[in-house]
Amino acid sequence: MSKSRIIVLTVIVSLLGIGLGVIIGYFGHPNQNLNIPAPVVPTEDPTISQLLMNELSADNIKENLRTLTQSPHIAGRDQDDVVLVDLIKQRWLNDLDSVVIHPYNVLLSYPKQNDSNYISIKLDNGTEIDVSQRKELVIDAEQNNPNVVDPFNAYSAAGEPEGDLVYVNYARIEDFFHLNRTKMISTVGKICISRYGAIFRGDKAVHAELYGCIGLIIYSDPIDYTVPWSGVYPEDWYLPSTGAQRGTLWTDNGDPRTPNYPSIQYTFDLLLQQRYAHLPKIPVTPIGYIDAVKYLGKLAGEEVIDTWKGGMNITYRYGPGFSAEHSNSKIKMSVKTTNQPAIIHNVIGYIRGKVEPDRYVLFGNHRDAWVFGAIDPTSGTATMLELTRAFGTMLKRGWRPRRTLVFCSWGAEEYGLIGSTEWVEELQKELQARAIAYLNVDAAVQGNFSLAANGVASLNQVVFDSTKLVSNPNPAEVSEGRSTVYDTWKHRSPSSSEDVPSIGGLGSGSDYTAFLQVLGIASVDLRHTYDRSIGLASYPVYHSVYETFSLVEKFVDPGFQYHVSVSRVWGEIGRKLADSPVLPLDCRLYAQDLAKKRDDLITYYGSDMEKNGVDFAQLNESIRIFIQSANEIHQRIQSIDISNAYETRAINDQLMLLERSFIDQNPLPGRVAYRHVVSAPSQHNSYGSTAFPAVVDAMFDIDADPDPVGRWNEVKKQYSILVFHILSAAAALKPAV
Amino acid sequence: MSKSRIIVLTVIVSLLGIGLGVIIGYFGHPNQNLNIPAPVVPTEDPTISQLLMNELSADNIKENLRTLTQSPHIAGRDQDDVVLVDLIKQRWLNDLDSVVIHPYNVLLSYPKQNDSNYISIKLDNGTEIDVSQRKELVIDAEQNNPNVVDPFNAYSAAGEPEGDLVYVNYARIEDFFHLNRTKMISTVGKICISRYGAIFRGDKAVHAELYGCIGLIIYSDPIDYTVPWSGVYPEDWYLPSTGAQRGTLWTDNGDPRTPNYPSIQYTFDLLLQQRYAHLPKIPVTPIGYIDAVKYLGKLAGEEVIDTWKGGMNITYRYGPGFSAEHSNSKIKMSVKTTNQPAIIHNVIGYIRGKVEPDRYVLFGNHRDAWVFGAIDPTSGTATMLELTRAFGTMLKRGWRPRRTLVFCSWGAEEYGLIGSTEWVEELQKELQARAIAYLNVDAAVQGNFSLAANGVASLNQVVFDSTKLVSNPNPAEVSEGRSTVYDTWKHRSPSSSEDVPSIGGLGSGSDYTAFLQVLGIASVDLRHTYDRSIGLASYPVYHSVYETFSLVEKFVDPGFQYHVSVSRVWGEIGRKLADSPVLPLDCRLYAQDLAKKRDDLITYYGSDMEKNGVDFAQLNESIRIFIQSANEIHQRIQSIDISNAYETRAINDQLMLLERSFIDQNPLPGRVAYRHVVSAPSQHNSYGSTAFPAVVDAMFDIDADPDPVGRWNEVKKQYSILVFHILSAAAALKPAV
Repeated sequence: MSKSRIIVLTVIVSLLGIGLGVIIGYFGHPNQNLNIPAPVVPTEDPTISQLLMNELSADNIKENLRTLTQSPHIAGRDQDDVVLVDLIKQRWLNDLDSVVIHPYNVLLSYPKQNDSNYISIKLDNGTEIDVSQRKELVIDAEQNNPNVVDPFNAYSAAGEPEGDLVYVNYARIEDFFHLNRTKMISTVGKICISRYGAIFRGDKAVHAELYGCIGLIIYSDPIDYTVPWSGVYPEDWYLPSTGAQRGTLWTDNGDPRTPNYPSIQYTFDLLLQQRYAHLPKIPVTPIGYIDAVKYLGKLAGEEVIDTWKGGMNITYRYGPGFSAEHSNSKIKMSVKTTNQPAIIHNVIGYIRGKVEPDRYVLFGNHRDAWVFGAIDPTSGTATMLELTRAFGTMLKRGWRPRRTLVFCSWGAEEYGLIGSTEWVEELQKELQARAIAYLNVDAAVQGNFSLAANGVASLNQVVFDSTKLVSNPNPAEVSEGRSTVYDTWKHRSPSSSEDVPSIGGLGSGSDYTAFLQVLGIASVDLRHTYDRSIGLASYPVYHSVYETFSLVEKFVDPGFQYHVSVSRVWGEIGRKLADSPVLPLDCRLYAQDLAKKRDDLITYYGSDMEKNGVDFAQLNESIRIFIQSANEIHQRIQSIDISNAYETRAINDQLMLLERSFIDQNPLPGRVAYRHVVSAPSQHNSYGSTAFPAVVDAMFDIDADPDPVGRWNEVKKQYSILVFHILSAAAALKPAV
Repeated sequence: MSKSRIIVLTVIVSLLGIGLGVIIGYFGHPNQNLNIPAPVVPTEDPTISQLLMNELSADNIKENLRTLTQSPHIAGRDQDDVVLVDLIKQRWLNDLDSVVIHPYNVLLSYPKQNDSNYISIKLDNGTEIDVSQRKELVIDAEQNNPNVVDPFNAYSAAGEPEGDLVYVNYARIEDFFHLNRTKMISTVGKICISRYGAIFRGDKAVHAELYGCIGLIIYSDPIDYTVPWSGVYPEDWYLPSTGAQRGTLWTDNGDPRTPNYPSIQYTFDLLLQQRYAHLPKIPVTPIGYIDAVKYLGKLAGEEVIDTWKGGMNITYRYGPGFSAEHSNSKIKMSVKTTNQPAIIHNVIGYIRGKVEPDRYVLFGNHRDAWVFGAIDPTSGTATMLELTRAFGTMLKRGWRPRRTLVFCSWGAEEYGLIGSTEWVEELQKELQARAIAYLNVDAAVQGNFSLAANGVASLNQVVFDSTKLVSNPNPAEVSEGRSTVYDTWKHRSPSSSEDVPSIGGLGSGSDYTAFLQVLGIASVDLRHTYDRSIGLASYPVYHSVYETFSLVEKFVDPGFQYHVSVSRVWGEIGRKLADSPVLPLDCRLYAQDLAKKRDDLITYYGSDMEKNGVDFAQLNESIRIFIQSANEIHQRIQSIDISNAYETRAINDQLMLLERSFIDQNPLPGRVAYRHVVSAPSQHNSYGSTAFPAVVDAMFDIDADPDPVGRWNEVKKQYSILVFHILSAAAALKPAV
């Protein structure tokens, strides 16, 4: 070998050696160095949305509904508070991470077995004629169940009052004004008959009591529960003449014995001895129009104004008392409803969050029904059980949400949101610190017209975005080019001011109430609804014995596709809230909504308020500052570093704090259950939502007040408190330091 | 070269090559790989504690005190609310990151200039004799300042009542019981004279009004403000005969016109028109013993019992009225004090947290004084300004705390914690979400005996740990082997049950009140105190004109070493709370404290409560569950991964939630400003702290109630609410899912 070849060889070998060495060296790092984890930046899994939607099945929901509605399941009785509680618990033990049962000992109310309530006309000689039906007629065998509870209004006083009858229309406060102020017809000492509709029935009872009535009959008028172009059940889904609407009269929420505190074991047995206020002091009971026509048809007195006329083939008169041969007869009520303690249960199921287990997104639906409840609430329960099954399937595939999902099956909602309210009272500190949002579905499918939602404005965008991802269950709509739930919703229920669907404010009437009104947790209430423009007071068979599985299957949602659609929207909203690194809460929409509420206030009350010394400059300025803060936080969100956990958590905490900021530390004047200064149930109709409730309530009927100066000072005080809270909310959105 | 040599060479070269290659390869990783940051695990800087302590200077505090006490600086007047506000603002703009001034328009109270309050004896013929001094005598030139406000009690009604005088001892509720029930001496229509001490003066006025007095004179008795073995100022620091104690009578907190809401611009102008309750309806004024002796010495009636006797050289009698030649004379009060709106200011300075800027550790001290306030509060203000300077120096050296430090200079504390209360009301949502702890120092150095602290038990350990790091300012104590502040504190003020210093509960009386009582923010109040065993009602010159810089320099803390000591303890507690990755809040100590309070309740009230149907099993069970939760969370803390930001933040949020959990959503019965169910100011003495206040207050004087059943039901209700809150706090400490 020549020297030069040796050199060449040596160089080659050494280069090969170096190369080998480089390779060995490069990969020769000890494990602990090479395996330094990159900073954990949990982001959402973009595939899960579609997988979840595909998993949701109409057949499953249908079978859930059939199973859940086999028997009547009123609160406090075994079918609901033992059988269904156990069914849901078992399902969730299978699908979810954990389940907790929360029992509460609360005050419920039932009619007397074998001696349920009735109305009659009592003649001079004591004979009772025209006795009303104690039970709704059995139309299908399905309704023939010994556990059906006869029509009654919960928490009615018991009693057998007799007296002259007066017709009070919807028993709104303005109806009593009309009678007492315009028509000079006193209702003191009278038995009043009101039609259902327009306002919450509990407020009807409050008004009747306020105006001195000694009893209240509430009937369903055909004009409000049927249509002229179609027959009634079993021909179609409209209310038959024998159908009567059950329902509670309790106008606050939760166990009436323990306002603001939970009726939990170990503690509140003692409170049972406390006297409770606000329950009706007069007997109240519902009847169908098969009976109402007999009493209203005999009324004496002037004919009513047009807006008071119903749909029965009689001349509607005010009364008081009966005419002609019955002028000496009285109306008689026999009401034996009594209040009784009972144990009710919430079933709470959890999917533990992977990154932020201490942040909750809550899904809620009540379980108890007045009878079978195939629409209210069991269409929602059937949907929720399918949603939890689908989420469970995702879990088994290895998915886990960033934040914790909480599924809530509430007891005793029908009596006054009792299960949810007691639970919020019990867990108030935890929920205040940890709850992102509460997503309520009560009666999931009330019709096949359109999605409908009420909620706080910060949630609007995530609701819109979710509905855009859900395919339209209505083929006719799809063929019109509206391929998503969003499209039909926007088409059929457009917002008056923006190019989006309309989302209304939240009143009371379902389980979001305590979440929003006591704690300030951003809430939305979802359902699929019928065409509201036809003028029904509610879906027709609401709270009657005819609200059955077969009615749903025949008339409401035969393919259960609308049920699936609601489950998809509901699931996607919750998934998005649970998985997005930055919460999809939009403060700018909240700001817009505040400004709109301000504009409405000025439109309706502005000149009166200014005349009495309220300066809108203060409200305008507070809203200007709020809008600025809302815009700024969304700019900060654009540049947020989501790999910085503390920065991400801090901005999410601010977004969560937004809704909390509108909760007054004191309840609204005279209203123990409501603390939200931006929106609350209307003072005279718990179903409705009032913007700036303390201010507006302070002006109610102010011109008739003997002390207008005192009343206007109260308006000013409430106005000041409102402005303060808007400024406080704006401050909560600003950078912490 | 032989073949074998070539092979050997080739092997050697290739091995060298491999070796070189390994080295190149090992270090040859691209930068972006080698520089992967380790996960950020911010931990505290252990050196900063000592650096901060060394930075704090006695000379600086002394000069601060001299500067701040040059003139009287009562709330609402320029020296405090313009000059000192600006001084502090300028200092903090230099030392801290940012400063915000919060002005409030509030209701204050002042005596009439050139016609200040006095007392006299009015003879039959209308002549007034024994007229009291309107001003305290000038002893040193220092006190001769035209801005000294003459002795008065804030919010007294104006008036010139005349009547018979009755001595009411300390005007405690039990003193009125003694007079009215035991001695059968009615105070209705009388002018009462009470000595200062035992309880808050505002409660004296409430009791006097309740018992029908038409005026109240409050004097400082020498037995409560001097000692037999020493002279009075200027010989020593004891109260001279001419000294009178100013002070507020307002028993709630904050602007009396706006309970629960802040008196901020833009909003609450309108509220000024609201009527405000609870301010005294009778004239009240303070006097010194130079005057009191003249009135008390002439009293008629029986000699008082021993516990009512003071230290003046007279026979103490109850009255009513004067004896002998003055039996027809009346006592007359001339009080021209009026309520006046004023603008007060809080100065708030921030050091922005590096990691968690949205978590606050607050330091607070009030700025306003009745006169010069060299002890109350300016010993605290002088200390706080040195502490902020020292923290500023640390900042300039590159240190920055993990969490945000907030320094608060409160206005109008003396009138009823007005500045701090309005601020807490204004920022309630932010503070509720973000405040870790509030650390109050009012009168920092009241004596050279020992450190003293009142606070919530979860803070005890961090307070103990901090005082162990601070060297003992008392050389005599050091030579006894007690080298730290902790040692002397434990020696002189030992806990009755544990081997630690005693830390009492928080009543009211300084600015921690709203933080703890409205929002449930863990709070502690620190001071260096005199020897309480000698029986003084407070440090002697409290709220008199003699509370001057030279009194402090001569008698209280000549070397200002006790001031430095307080600044070190205060600073270290705050630093530790701001810097520790896991908050140094100890739930186990809270649990111990709850159990001790329960034991005390049973000791004092147990047999009565059980006799009336209260079952302690419920309270015992709730405390057992709380103890278990507290132990469990501290076990979880042992194994926490502080590199996991979400896990760390979650556990800290739980620790923060502990104190919040004891805040009732409703105020304690009849007490608009207090919501804490575990400890609140005593109902009949705002200075004191009552454990389980709603329960204990419901039992007050229950045997004298005409409706004992109703009262015991109220006890049971409050007991149930207490048990619920303990369970709620226990739940807040459990894992979130």
